[in-house]
Order: sequence, then C-alpha cells, then structure tokens
Amino acid sequence: MTRTPIAILGATGMVGQRMIQLLQDHPWFELVALAASERSAGQRFDQAAPWRLPGRCPPQVAAMQVLPCRPEAMPAGVRLVLSALDSGAARELEPLFREAGFAVVTNASAFRADPDVPLVIPELNPGHLALLDRQTGGDPDRGYILANPNCCALPLALALAPLHARWPVQALLVSTWQAVSGAGYPGESAWDMVGSVHPHPGDEEDKLNVEPQKILGQPGQPADFAVSARCVRVPTADGHLVGVHARLQGSPSVAEAAQAMREWQGEVQGLPSSPRPLLELTERRDRPSTRFDVDAGGGMAVTVGRLEECAVMGLKFYALAHNTVRGAAGAAIGNAELLVERGLVPGVSGRG
Amino acid sequence: MTRTPIAILGATGMVGQRMIQLLQDHPWFELVALAASERSAGQRFDQAAPWRLPGRCPPQVAAMQVLPCRPEAMPAGVRLVLSALDSGAARELEPLFREAGFAVVTNASAFRADPDVPLVIPELNPGHLALLDRQTGGDPDRGYILANPNCCALPLALALAPLHARWPVQALLVSTWQAVSGAGYPGESAWDMVGSVHPHPGDEEDKLNVEPQKILGQPGQPADFAVSARCVRVPTADGHLVGVHARLQGSPSVAEAAQAMREWQGEVQGLPSSPRPLLELTERRDRPSTRFDVDAGGGMAVTVGRLEECAVMGLKFYALAHNTVRGAAGAAIGNAELLVERGLVPGVSGRG
Amino acid sequence: MTRTPIAILGATGMVGQRMIQLLQDHPWFELVALAASERSAGQRFDQAAPWRLPGRCPPQVAAMQVLPCRPEAMPAGVRLVLSALDSGAARELEPLFREAGFAVVTNASAFRADPDVPLVIPELNPGHLALLDRQTGGDPDRGYILANPNCCALPLALALAPLHARWPVQALLVSTWQAVSGAGYPGESAWDMVGSVHPHPGDEEDKLNVEPQKILGQPGQPADFAVSARCVRVPTADGHLVGVHARLQGSPSVAEAAQAMREWQGEVQGLPSSPRPLLELTERRDRPSTRFDVDAGGGMAVTVGRLEECAVMGLKFYALAHNTVRGAAGAAIGNAELLVERGLVPGVSGRG
Amino acid sequence: MTRTPIAILGATGMVGQRMIQLLQDHPWFELVALAASERSAGQRFDQAAPWRLPGRCPPQVAAMQVLPCRPEAMPAGVRLVLSALDSGAARELEPLFREAGFAVVTNASAFRADPDVPLVIPELNPGHLALLDRQTGGDPDRGYILANPNCCALPLALALAPLHARWPVQALLVSTWQAVSGAGYPGESAWDMVGSVHPHPGDEEDKLNVEPQKILGQPGQPADFAVSARCVRVPTADGHLVGVHARLQGSPSVAEAAQAMREWQGEVQGLPSSPRPLLELTERRDRPSTRFDVDAGGGMAVTVGRLEECAVMGLKFYALAHNTVRGAAGAAIGNAELLVERGLVPGVSGRG
Repeated sequence: MTRTPIAILGATGMVGQRMIQLLQDHPWFELVALAASERSAGQRFDQAAPWRLPGRCPPQVAAMQVLPCRPEAMPAGVRLVLSALDSGAARELEPLFREAGFAVVTNASAFRADPDVPLVIPELNPGHLALLDRQTGGDPDRGYILANPNCCALPLALALAPLHARWPVQALLVSTWQAVSGAGYPGESAWDMVGSVHPHPGDEEDKLNVEPQKILGQPGQPADFAVSARCVRVPTADGHLVGVHARLQGSPSVAEAAQAMREWQGEVQGLPSSPRPLLELTERRDRPSTRFDVDAGGGMAVTVGRLEECAVMGLKFYALAHNTVRGAAGAAIGNAELLVERGLVPGVSGRG
Repeated sequence: MTRTPIAILGATGMVGQRMIQLLQDHPWFELVALAASERSAGQRFDQAAPWRLPGRCPPQVAAMQVLPCRPEAMPAGVRLVLSALDSGAARELEPLFREAGFAVVTNASAFRADPDVPLVIPELNPGHLALLDRQTGGDPDRGYILANPNCCALPLALALAPLHARWPVQALLVSTWQAVSGAGYPGESAWDMVGSVHPHPGDEEDKLNVEPQKILGQPGQPADFAVSARCVRVPTADGHLVGVHARLQGSPSVAEAAQAMREWQGEVQGLPSSPRPLLELTERRDRPSTRFDVDAGGGMAVTVGRLEECAVMGLKFYALAHNTVRGAAGAAIGNAELLVERGLVPGVSGRG
Repeated sequence: MTRTPIAILGATGMVGQRMIQLLQDHPWFELVALAASERSAGQRFDQAAPWRLPGRCPPQVAAMQVLPCRPEAMPAGVRLVLSALDSGAARELEPLFREAGFAVVTNASAFRADPDVPLVIPELNPGHLALLDRQTGGDPDRGYILANPNCCALPLALALAPLHARWPVQALLVSTWQAVSGAGYPGESAWDMVGSVHPHPGDEEDKLNVEPQKILGQPGQPADFAVSARCVRVPTADGHLVGVHARLQGSPSVAEAAQAMREWQGEVQGLPSSPRPLLELTERRDRPSTRFDVDAGGGMAVTVGRLEECAVMGLKFYALAHNTVRGAAGAAIGNAELLVERGLVPGVSGRG
Repeated sequence: MTRTPIAILGATGMVGQRMIQLLQDHPWFELVALAASERSAGQRFDQAAPWRLPGRCPPQVAAMQVLPCRPEAMPAGVRLVLSALDSGAARELEPLFREAGFAVVTNASAFRADPDVPLVIPELNPGHLALLDRQTGGDPDRGYILANPNCCALPLALALAPLHARWPVQALLVSTWQAVSGAGYPGESAWDMVGSVHPHPGDEEDKLNVEPQKILGQPGQPADFAVSARCVRVPTADGHLVGVHARLQGSPSVAEAAQAMREWQGEVQGLPSSPRPLLELTERRDRPSTRFDVDAGGGMAVTVGRLEECAVMGLKFYALAHNTVRGAAGAAIGNAELLVERGLVPGVSGRG
C-alpha cells in the first residue's frame, strides 16, 4: 500500500519534533518535508534545531533540508500538512495553505473557534468532518483547515464522551496540573518551576471554557453547558492531569459512569495511533500520576482514576494524558489518519 | 513580663521542629521541654532526631534531653503543651494530658471532629474558645484540648472568612497543589515525586469536607454547606496552593469580594504570630506561586490571587499558605497565644 | 528453542520490578517464580507490592503467588535465580541457594568483594567467569554466586574498558549525579530531594574505590590504581551521570580515546540485552543529560560526552547510564544471558 | 552617619534584583538609582521588570524610575555603581562609567582577566585593591573597575583560602552541582531541568581554570596551579555545591585542614555583609545540601562538609554557597563595603 506523503509546518519546535517522532515508521504516512521559519529555512534540520526530545533525532530526518513555510515550497504530491505553528504564525500561514489546496491538520489554536473549522478528536466526533464542506464547498480537491483541541480539553472531552452520550453534561468544574512541555521550548523558566507551581497566566482557561462544548456538541451546534477552569503549571515534564467535577443530566451513579467509560470503544476503530482501550481506568487511590501513567497506550490513552461522588456537582474524577502526544502531535496525526480513512485528503482516494 | 513555659509533644518530627523554630525568641513563651516517643526519650534532642529544616537546630535546644510523652514527665510549672503528635499517638496521649490539667494545643486531627473540642484559627473564630467550658466545666484549673484545622482547611477558611461574614457560603469546590512537607518526614518517596504529581491517597479530602463548616460556623453549630475537594501532592517543598470555587449567598461581585478581603482585620489583633495583613492580595496573573509566596508574613499570611468570576459557582480564587507554619506549627502557636491573651492557660492569669 | 526457567529473589522492590519488566517476552528466559520476604510470601504479587514502575505490572505476573526466599520453595527445574535482595538479606540467603545448587546472579553488594565471586559486566570481562570454578570445584552441577557491579561502577567501567585495554588506568577521580531510584523504594525522602542535592551518606564511594579495579583487572587480580569518588544524590528519577577524570598510562589524546570508545565492540556480542553500540558518544556540549539520554539502547547503553583534556589528570569525560537497568536489573539479566551462552547454568547444556 | 549613595546597573535581572534586596536597610549604602537597558529606561521599576525573587519588591524601589545605563544619567553625588550587567553590556558600558569617574563594582566577567582589574573577595584578598592604582594612577578622584569572581570560584576560593595560606595549592579538581538561578532569568528552560541534569555548555569551566589562581595569588601575580573543572546544572533554585579535590604542598591531615578552616577569620572583619563564621563546617555525612544550607550566614557563609582524605589528590571536601548572594550580588556589595571601609570611593573620605 502506498503511504500518503505528509509535511510538517513548524517542525523545529516541541510539538513539531513530537510529530517527527510519531511519524517514524508510520504505516500510512511518509514524512517528506519539514518547514519552519525563515530563520531556519535552508539549513539541515539538525542544524536548524537541536533535538529537544529524549533520544536522538532520526538520522534521515536530521539530514533533511528545512523548507520555508510557504505552500509553493512544498514538494510535488504533498496535499496534507501537519501544523505545529504557534498561534500567530498559524493565523497568517494556515489560510495560505488552505487556499493552495492543502488539507491543514493543525494543533494551533488560531482557528479553533471558527464555526467552519471542525474541532475533532478522531475517536470522539468524526462526524464533525462534515463541517469541512463549508470550507471546500464540497469540492474534493480544495483545501481546508482541521483543528484538534487544546491539550487539556482533549483528555477532558475524551473522558466525558461516554458519559455525555447518555447523561448530557450540564456544568463542569476543571482544575489542572499541567506539565512544562505545554509551554513549548524554551517555554517556562526553570527558575519559576523548580519546586514551585503557578497559575497559568495565559488564555488556557478561556480555551477550556469553549472547546469542550464544541467537541461534544453537534457539528455547528456546540453543546450548552458552563465550564469554569483553573489551570496551574507544575514541575513535571510531560502529562497534564485534569481534575473534573461534572453535573450530568440524569445523575449516573459512580458504577454506571465507570461502566460507560470501560465499555467505550470510540466512534472510529482501527486508526494506527488509536490505542485499545482509549480510556484506562485505574483503581489505585494515588493514580493517575504523571510520570507513571503518561505513556499509557503509547501516550495516546487517557488514564482515568478516582471516579467518585461529588457532593456539589454529582460526579468527579481525574484524567491524565500526554500533552504533547495525545494532546498535540498525536492528536493532529490521529486527525490526519481519520482524513485518510475517510478519503478526505484532497486529490487522494480513500482507504475505506 | 514573665514568659509562659511551654512544652512540645512530638518534638522530633517535621511539625515539632517547626514549632521549635517558631518558638525561638518568642516574646510570650519559653520552651522548657521536648517530649517524644519512648524510642527518643532520654537522649539529647540532636541525637534523637537530625534537624530536618533548613539551617541549624538552635544550640540550646539541641542540648535538651528528650522527655517521654507523659504528663508526669513534664517539668513543674508547665501547664501548656503544643502537640505535633501523629493522629494515632494523639488519640491515646492527648486525653492523658488533659486529665492531668494541661491545656493541649494540638495540630493533630484526632479530636477535631469532637463537638466539645474547638477548631480554632485565632484571628478567625476566637469565640469558639467558649466550647472549652464543655471540657472544663468552667473550672479555670482544668485541662482541655484545643485543635487547629488541617493545613488545607486553614488557608481555605482564612480566605473565606471575610466573604462568609457577609455572603454566607453555600457550596465549595476545592482543588489543591500540596507540598511534600505535608506528609511529614520521611513522608513521600522522592521516587514518587520527582517530576510527578499524584492524588492524595489518604483522608485529606474528607477533612476538607467537614472542617470549614465547623470553623466558619457558630460554636457547636457548624455552618451548613457542601464541600467537594480534590487533593493532589506536587513536588514542592513547603506551601499548599488551594483553588477555590465558591457559591455565596448574595453573589458578591469580584470587586466586592476583593474589598472585603483587603479590609479584613481578623477578630483578634496583636498576637505575636499574627501578620499584617492576614490576607495578601496579588494582582499578578501567575501568582500565588509556591516558592515565591510561601513566606509571606513570615509564613503566617495567606496570599490570595486571581479572584475572578466563576461561570459555575459564582466566584473563584487561589489561596496559598505555608503548610507547616500557618497550616500547622504556627497555627498551634497562634492558638496558644490566643489562650494567653484570653487568660485561659490553666492556673495562669491572663494578659488582657 | 526452550527458554531457561528463571526466578527472582526480592521481586517486590525497585530492582526486582525492573527485572520483571525486562524479562517480559525475553527470548531466552521464562520467568517462573517470584520470591520475597516472609511478609509477602503467599500473597498474589500485586497484593504483596503495588507496582512502582511507570505503566502496569504485566497481568500474568500480577497473578503469580509470591514464594518465600528459600531454595526448597523454588519450582522444580529452576536452577537460575536473579537476586534483587538488599545486602543484608543477600548475605544470609544467597549462600543457601548456592549450596542448593542454584546459579545466583546477584545485584546485591554482599559478596562483591569475595575473591571467589566474579564481578562481571558481560560485554567487558566475561573471562572472569573462570572464577566460578573456585566455587564449584569445576562441577557443572553445583551452584555459585555471580555478581554485577554497583550502579555507578558500571558505567564507569564500561566507558573505561576500551581505554584501559590500551592505556592502563593509573588513577581515577569520579563525581556522580545520582538518581533517586538508586536508593530503592521508598528510598530518599521527597522532602530531602525537592530542589536539593546532597552527598550520599552511605558507602557508595567505598564501592567505587574497589570495584573498578576488580572489573578491569584479571580474574583474581584486581588492577592497581587509586580511585577517589564523590557521590551526590540529585532530584532525578532514573540515570546516574558520572564525571570521570582519568590518568592513563601512555596519555592518549582526546581523538585517540574517542576512537577507541567508538570502535569498541565488547568481548561478547549477541546477548539479547546487549545494545549496539555499547557506548554512544555525543558531540553536544550539554549532554549527556539524565532525562534525555537515560534510555539509550533500551537503558543498556552508556552515553559518553565531553571527552576533553584534563589539566590535572590527562583526560576527562562524562558517562551516563540507567542505574536500575544497565546498573542493576539489566546488569544481572545480562550476566544470566552470558551464563546461558557459555553453558554455565547448573544442569543445563549451553547455547554456544 | 551618612550613607553612601549607590546605583545599580542592570537592575532588572536576577542579580540586579538580589542587589536591590540586599541593599534594603543597608547600614552603609543608600540605593538612589536603578539603571537598565534602553528598553526599560523611563519606566517605573515594577513596570519594567516583574519581581522575580521570593516576596515582593520593596515598595519604594518599585516606584523608582529606571534610568538608562549611562554615566551622565546618574544622579548627582553618586560615585559608586554596582554592575549586574551581562558580559556583553558590561564590556561596553563599564569603561564609560570608569572614565566618568565612577567606582564600578561589577559582578560581570568582562574584565576579570584584565591584569589591572582586581578580582576581590573582601575577606580573602583585600590587598588586591592595590591594583586599582594601575587604573587610577593613584588619583583618588578617578574611576575604576573592581570585579568579584564567578559564582563557583567564590566558594572554592573562600574554602581554600585558609589552607592555601599554609599549604599552597598545587592542583585542583572541581565538580559542581549548580542551581538554575546561575543562568539568570529566564535562563534555563524548565523542560531541560525537570528531573534532569546536564553539563554546563558555556565557559564556566574556563573561568574556574583561571580565577582561583588570580584570587589566591599576589596582586598581579596569580598563583601557579592547574585546575580542571566539571560544571553541571541541576534542578535546584539557589545554591552551588562544589566538590573539591586538592593537592596541597605539605599535605595537611584532615584534622589540620579542618582546624585551619574553623579558625579562619578572614583578612577583614566587620563588614556589614560579612558573616561570622565565614566558613561553617558541618559534621553530617549528607551535608552540605542545597536547600538546607544555602542560607547559612544570610546567604553569605560557605558551608563546608565531608572534609576527607582523597586517595588521588590528598584532600577532598564539599563547599556550598548561595550563588546569587555570596556568589554574585552579595559579593559585589561586600566589595563596595570594602571600598567604603578603605576610603576608596572616588571623591569620598574613608570610614576607617
């Protein structure tokens, strides 16, 4: 079977390097191009950016030449790009790629709130791909932007999905214990994080106030519930722990909620990046724990623990996911896999 | 002025050593005895327990002989003991001291739920000392037990006090980012905490479900509201950060709540351990932060930040306090100071 | 091909669990028994000891019943045991297993100084197995004890091996930055390690003063050079970084030393746990770095960096290895593999 | 007594803020001006730079207007400036201040190697101030540059001073466990430091190869011995631990060396920032430890431990000091105090 050629925009950063790592020996994709800022373009990849992840940069990637982030710089045959650009660059560049006929599968937040841009977790709401027609007018050769959620919204939505399907969410209280990799590289100062935690000063909480509704709603019709979040950075490397208090219509018991989570198979099966199970429930009272659970399912599973009654909201639990795998690079790759599986890569016939 | 002689029960542990540290050069107290388990009794203090806090053990304390934890072992003239015993030992030993006529000012949780034992933060609910009569029958020469709250309940209650006075609490959601010193010594394993966080597996959440109501209520009549807590250990040394979502009767605005906090003077002024202000409000979006705010007011102030609207509960904010100073050793010493100020040390006339 | 049955003594601890993890799907060994202290014996493994490593305990291991650490408790057919016992238990129990005819491949330090017990790194000094005859009298059916070195001595000796072969070591200065897993579980207190480092108070430095000479020498004839070590615990989870200053006979240049390291193949090839290359040389000035290099070669490679001239000793470099894989559990398994390869498991014919 | 007016160059950074902190209520100095880069100049100090140290910026400092780093911008009457500039800016700007008649007391490394610039630790080598004449030609009204050593060289030299005086140093091996504050702000990336250590990629080791000789030598005649250093960054906030192996002429015993360290009073007594004792010797085998010893003597003492025989070099020990207090801001302030005490501030009569 031919693998689909794929390129990465913003390949030198923390999420871009995770994409490179996850695309090694990928059964469906062949990484053919790396693009980054003008400062990096033209250099060998390993000259442009020291490898920031554990281990070594794959040698064949290290030797690739970095391209500029322009549609016309992409090699012939590439119609699918993963974007790890930061929000400002994404806002400017991703529309250029869309206009040029590329499927842009982005981790950036720039267009998540755009009603025509689907916010998709492949196993959760693949039906939202229907929104792509609003961008392409139904023309299978035209480009579009497809976004994945914020790194905290993702485990939150995944853990809630099997509950929301039967007992619709009415309100959510969320607290986070977020790893430093969420800030990119160099990101947080070590001086601020050694033996310390601090409230996330950015717009992380705002994202959590709107993204879950869009993901868990119908295409074009966000679900209707209030969210209030407190996001705190903690001195962990990878893995966001999310504490969730949920008010659910019908007030399921803890046992009912646990069973729904355990039985959940997702809406789509068989994507290469999709683990079995999607949700790993732990019985240990001191889990999920960042270092010990972050790599569950190759970093693509969500570990859920301490599912208990909440005296105020009804139900509470913790969910943990790898923020740069399931919550970013792997989220985008999963979406790209979904596009292949649905035959939605521009100019390419489907896999189904 | 004569200083009141005071002894410490459980002097060798993390909280006991903090008590020693805070009693150095105390204007009202003279530390005259250290008691600990039979294993330690009879040894020089510095032989019984290596000093676990930053800096050095005060030399005159290092040379003191550790006494057994028995009332009859106390030096003549001592009627006031601070207890840093763990809960099991406290349950057994504190009543013996009470029976023998001692005022037992305890940090242990053993008797906090006892309706006759006041749960007091000196600046917040000094009126609860009235409950002592239930233990002494009003006899000023008899002993009693006086408890301070849990290390998370304390900043929570202190920050809520000025709000609750005008807009009674109706429900609370609480999340914590708790330092390892809260587990005592050796406490948490470094293996579990290096670059990792985990849910507190003990009964910390249960304490937060009942203590705030007792503290914020009337003596003998706990306030009536639900609390739901999520307690998580993080790799910080000292300082518990608490995220609070509150539903308050009358729904004050953020500005009103901030003003109430800023103006709050406490019910008692002038105790040596009591800082000015009690609540420090910060405007920085990335604060309070453990390492940077933990020592506010000599570790006895509570730093409050990010006071904001909560879409679900009405109001939310963070509060941070030093868990072994304001939340434990300093809490007990503050209560002891209150007893002196009110003339309630058995057999000793008051200061007022 | 039949896999050799193998048992683990001290299976519940940090190193025992690593052994379990590394024996999953091992091509040469079948894990058939777990033994631990009397307190654990008789329980299901997952009841006896919560899993302490990232991820989950393999389900079939979780369900195994823990046996007492006695030779007669071992299942029929087992003649090879891995020991992760602590030093005191090892001193008492390992000789019992030897007397009963078992090959005891131990990570414990109890018998490392015994001149009849070989101290072996399989790729480095397999010839030291000749010492086993001193224990068995050459009888292939009798038991013996075979030890691997200390977790710091191991990367030190591996990195020096290719140098020592051509330019014999004359003196060594060693400093370490050691991870907390080296202390076992619970091991170091988190209170002592959050944002702090401290000198190792135990006998780690003493081990480094004698083990390298035994490993790098001839069987029964330790090499003759002085070692002085400074061992410091740092707040990292896994991975000991070792800084080495070496005075070598013949004073090789940096380039010569680097070439010798790069070309080194080891004395034995093809063991399942043995990585290619054994030594990974990095050119980055900020490497090796614990979190980023600890898993090189599946945790079995040693990463060497900053090979530079030393104005005092001649040559200096850093070496990093995973202390509970290459430095403990994997070291023992490698030795067990070597025994199989050489046909030295009592009562079992060889592989060669 | 009149306090000497003093200004800080580079006031917004990590070291500049420490200078501000240490000058609060200083008995000899009055902080009258803060200067920083053009980007900050003209703003209120607290607008120009968020406070990065624990606690709050002193309110009167917060309200000061930041001046540009130019001599002509200094308020009238100021002849003494502390420089916390980084090396590049220092190289350009410090000579301008010298030419304009200022005493520049600098923490920057730019001119440390200049033979006419004394490298001074006030209690150790005050006689090196004689070199200032080479800059001023002996004119008491002319400006000059006076430098303090690198943050690792400082504890190293202080701990060696009493030894070197009787048993001259012949060679040194040094390893370090360095805190992240040494990299300034934002400095090290948290991603690189969470649960990780790495070799210092900069020129730290080079500084340690030359500064000790200059400090411990005669004015203009560096001592003659070789140094080889390994500098490693560890995830601690403040405090550099230094492991020293020394070959000393005359080979003192451990007891003799300890006595010399204990008895050492320094060459100058009575400076406000100078603690008693200068060297704190600890008997604990697990000390000095960063978090527990960093604040000894208000951050100005050096804690020495594990003074032991070294099989290779003769003597070994650990020394720990606060790297931004004793090793930077406090070092500069101590030098400024020395200038006042010696009457060497341009245009100002002495204190002696």
